[in-house]
Amino acid sequence: MVQKQALALDLFLNEAHQSIFGDRSGAPADYIPELAKVDPEQFGIAITTSDGVTHEIGETSTEFTIQSISKAFVYCLALELLGSEKVTKAIGIEPSGEAFNSIRLNPENRPFNPMVNSGAIACTALICRHYGDEAFEKIAATLGDFAGRKLLLDEKVYSSENATGDRNRAISWLLKNNDNLHCDVEEVLGVYFRQCSLLVTASDLSVMGATLSNKGVNPVTGKKVIGKTASIQTMSVMVSAGMYDYSGEWTFKVGLPAKSGVGGGITAVLPSQFGLGVFSPPLDKLGNSVRGVKVCEMLSEHFNLHVLKMEDDVTQNIPIKYDLSKIRSSRSRSNRDNKILEEFGSQAIVLELSGVVNFIGSNFISRSVVENEEADYIILSFKRVARLTSASIEVFRLFFSNFSSTNTQLVVVGKEDADSLFGDITGLIKEHTQHFETLDQAIDWAEDRLIARYDAERDNSDDPISMKQQPLLKDLSSSDLELLEQNTVKTQYERGAKIIESGDKADGVYFLQAGRVNVMLNEHVYIAGLDKGTCFGELALIAPDAPRSADVIAETDAQCSFLSIENVERISSGNPKIRELLLRNLGLILFERLQQSNSKISALSVN
Amino acid sequence: MVQKQALALDLFLNEAHQSIFGDRSGAPADYIPELAKVDPEQFGIAITTSDGVTHEIGETSTEFTIQSISKAFVYCLALELLGSEKVTKAIGIEPSGEAFNSIRLNPENRPFNPMVNSGAIACTALICRHYGDEAFEKIAATLGDFAGRKLLLDEKVYSSENATGDRNRAISWLLKNNDNLHCDVEEVLGVYFRQCSLLVTASDLSVMGATLSNKGVNPVTGKKVIGKTASIQTMSVMVSAGMYDYSGEWTFKVGLPAKSGVGGGITAVLPSQFGLGVFSPPLDKLGNSVRGVKVCEMLSEHFNLHVLKMEDDVTQNIPIKYDLSKIRSSRSRSNRDNKILEEFGSQAIVLELSGVVNFIGSNFISRSVVENEEADYIILSFKRVARLTSASIEVFRLFFSNFSSTNTQLVVVGKEDADSLFGDITGLIKEHTQHFETLDQAIDWAEDRLIARYDAERDNSDDPISMKQQPLLKDLSSSDLELLEQNTVKTQYERGAKIIESGDKADGVYFLQAGRVNVMLNEHVYIAGLDKGTCFGELALIAPDAPRSADVIAETDAQCSFLSIENVERISSGNPKIRELLLRNLGLILFERLQQSNSKISALSVN
Repeated sequence: MVQKQALALDLFLNEAHQSIFGDRSGAPADYIPELAKVDPEQFGIAITTSDGVTHEIGETSTEFTIQSISKAFVYCLALELLGSEKVTKAIGIEPSGEAFNSIRLNPENRPFNPMVNSGAIACTALICRHYGDEAFEKIAATLGDFAGRKLLLDEKVYSSENATGDRNRAISWLLKNNDNLHCDVEEVLGVYFRQCSLLVTASDLSVMGATLSNKGVNPVTGKKVIGKTASIQTMSVMVSAGMYDYSGEWTFKVGLPAKSGVGGGITAVLPSQFGLGVFSPPLDKLGNSVRGVKVCEMLSEHFNLHVLKMEDDVTQNIPIKYDLSKIRSSRSRSNRDNKILEEFGSQAIVLELSGVVNFIGSNFISRSVVENEEADYIILSFKRVARLTSASIEVFRLFFSNFSSTNTQLVVVGKEDADSLFGDITGLIKEHTQHFETLDQAIDWAEDRLIARYDAERDNSDDPISMKQQPLLKDLSSSDLELLEQNTVKTQYERGAKIIESGDKADGVYFLQAGRVNVMLNEHVYIAGLDKGTCFGELALIAPDAPRSADVIAETDAQCSFLSIENVERISSGNPKIRELLLRNLGLILFERLQQSNSKISALSVN
Repeated sequence: MVQKQALALDLFLNEAHQSIFGDRSGAPADYIPELAKVDPEQFGIAITTSDGVTHEIGETSTEFTIQSISKAFVYCLALELLGSEKVTKAIGIEPSGEAFNSIRLNPENRPFNPMVNSGAIACTALICRHYGDEAFEKIAATLGDFAGRKLLLDEKVYSSENATGDRNRAISWLLKNNDNLHCDVEEVLGVYFRQCSLLVTASDLSVMGATLSNKGVNPVTGKKVIGKTASIQTMSVMVSAGMYDYSGEWTFKVGLPAKSGVGGGITAVLPSQFGLGVFSPPLDKLGNSVRGVKVCEMLSEHFNLHVLKMEDDVTQNIPIKYDLSKIRSSRSRSNRDNKILEEFGSQAIVLELSGVVNFIGSNFISRSVVENEEADYIILSFKRVARLTSASIEVFRLFFSNFSSTNTQLVVVGKEDADSLFGDITGLIKEHTQHFETLDQAIDWAEDRLIARYDAERDNSDDPISMKQQPLLKDLSSSDLELLEQNTVKTQYERGAKIIESGDKADGVYFLQAGRVNVMLNEHVYIAGLDKGTCFGELALIAPDAPRSADVIAETDAQCSFLSIENVERISSGNPKIRELLLRNLGLILFERLQQSNSKISALSVN
């Protein structure tokens, strides 16, 4: 049995909890009498990843009041409801350099930011004005959506806050005086005190943080709680003012958007990665949970998680590059065509991209395209790309719509659902580049173009190719060839006709003399294509009892010469040399295909 | 010809320059008379990517004085020289809510932060104390290293600043009074005014920013200017206080660490991606370049570049997963062994990782390992991984050193230079997991283990295998087999012996009857291995004139039976059936290998 402790996050939480637990400095908030009654020993830590898995230790299901942490989420709700323009008109977003309960307003007589009490009350007033009597219910419901469960009110704490919140009354009346609180003061304060008295757990706080980190979508419930923009704007204010007077130092040392509350909670976020929730009541002199701050510092330091510590790699998105001189599509082509591709295949370059492509990655990819401009075709495969950031979509929008070259044709390989990858530039990509759903199709297409371009004397007619040119019949004497040819059956197939059906007995070899055919699985999965001058069903020569493993369907009108095993047997009985040559040639064909497959494997591997 | 404009950054810069140029609001700084003389029309923008490519437009090589932008880089130098503890003892890191030239200090009588004048002067004082008379030279040299060229002093601006800088004199004496300036006041001011009067261009500022973004290594010159920690700490202070009283709003709207100067310059950074430099003299009332702010806002908005707008994808690092029931190493094994692997290969799982693995990615990878704990072997290939962030190295350190399972053996495939990928956990990985340099080696090893585990009755002796078990000799009658065997030459090879030399004439087939051999290129590149019961050099049967394409070397003591083409000819002339069967069997062997190669290609492709 693999032990749960094998996961680094669990190990870390274990260690952090143990080593920090011993710190008994600080004291629970006492300015609200009800808060002072809490057991200061309680200590819980939870981390929820952006794919919705929670790691936790200690008292992570103990409820406590959310207090100032609500400021961040109510601010987020206001941004979502009213937009940032209206909200920032009422409430500034500059750090104040003042204590959280300062009554001082900024030079425009507005609160400095939504994380100080004046700003938070002004923010609740905005919600009250918007929702009227339903304001508190809506706030509680939204915070509950962030947490992924219904949050209840601690009536005692609410009463206690209401009874002793005279400084906040003063602040509210000052806001009212400055025309910044357009509702009844007591009504707004009632909602504000209740929003601060909502009960959460450390685990709730981690999910709430993860919802912000996940751009407003709760990763546990999957519910879209809030928009992307409001999430990022809220985290921005948490960066500049989330940790009271410790915010600058917090950014310097920890570097995770965070918000603390006097109930002993802290929620911290690493965007697109996780939310953290901590609960430990004793506070330092700035009002932040002592152990909570330590957990965040330890986590950030141990794992180097500062938001500015990005460690991207410009070149990460192009792990695989090759050209068509060695790597081919799954189409079997005539010898003549293969020779052309050997010689001119380097004129078609494939860049297989992967990972998450960001701003600078897309810039690097564009530059690589331009640097390879001597090529006739550049195939950009996005098959392995997990995601394009919106920055890279913008870069590609500009790049693809402006790329103009008399020389190079851009080919883009997307995914079956191109929209999900390219978003609103899907149409533009299809318009400005040659677009394919599979890389094999794209390579096949480029091969066709290269052959047309570099083999001026190619026979592009529909005329059947002579049997002599079939690699399987190589080195046969003219008389043997004639003998064989007399024993084949020529058939014309219309486009779409099924030439071989999977499961049929393998009774002979088909020489494709004109047109193109496709090898298909279950009639609709393309496996390989064949051009005139090649053969199929040749396995019948060595394993005549095996059933056909796939369908062969005419892609165009086609002509085949069929040589039955029966006839091969009959002819060779008098002339064993014929059969021997067929077997030798088959060996050579298979060997060549094997070599091609292996060079494809080397190109795809980094072994 | 591909046009330069095809690159999105150039297109964007072009558009931004055009659309913002028309804004003639604001006015050049006039509190220093010399600065007011500048041509307000000048406007240059440059972006330097973290791999050292600069995109630019407009007046990007016009020199102007760096002014307050120097604060960020001198602070960075102080952090590097003295460490953050000493520096933050002298200078706070909280936003002040005050103007940049405020004389007010924080409650501990220290400057609020290094981006206000008091903090910057205190910072220069730290450098003066450290370097004495050389302080200015060292500062100029460091800023020059950031820019990648020698920066000169504008003597006129310096004299002008010196002559009119009385408010800064007052600040300095106040610092001295508070025991926060341990040098001669005029000396410190002399250095400070000169550091502000260094001449830079927009292009310089972009390289300076890119050096911060690149964690202290100048991406153009390659020189390590400053450490990673100092870079990140400097960017942190730029986030909270870099744009004067506009810092909160800047974080909210733009979200790139930045610093502006009254000379009209702004440098902004997207960590690990790029540095931006703008020059346009007219300032808004907060002292920031009007056009400069607009460029940053436009860039951030257009490309969605806010530092908190990360768009990682938890699952991005595991694009390829398969097991050994279908995918095999390049070793040819006996039929019996192959059957075992078909049946039990699913007990060995390969996760091919790729991209940049970050905190949450490594967590997801660890979880995937734990979720596959029913497997006997889990092979984690880091071959395609571009980089492990330090966070993920920590996660793997904890994971690998604590992973304990009675069931699952972890196998790690690193790179040739494992240190460069795994850093200081290289030793730990080699100690706690089975470590290989190539994926093929790892798969080969796991195959061996699976066979040993699931084929209890396997013949593990060194006894030669009988010729009858050779797939190439399948279906031969006992008498034909005997005839062939009589015509083979048995040879014992010692470990290390060269059995076939590349370039030799292909004169026959080797049946490996005991031991193991390796196919090697140039004696040291491993291509494939063979076990007893398989054959090599079999191409001689169909292409006897072709030279051997690789060396074959005995991995262990080995025994081969050599069948020359001459003997095959001789025997078959009387008994053509023998040759026909050999050719047929060769076809079947090649066909099977081809199928294996193709399923490997499907596993590696996402086509």
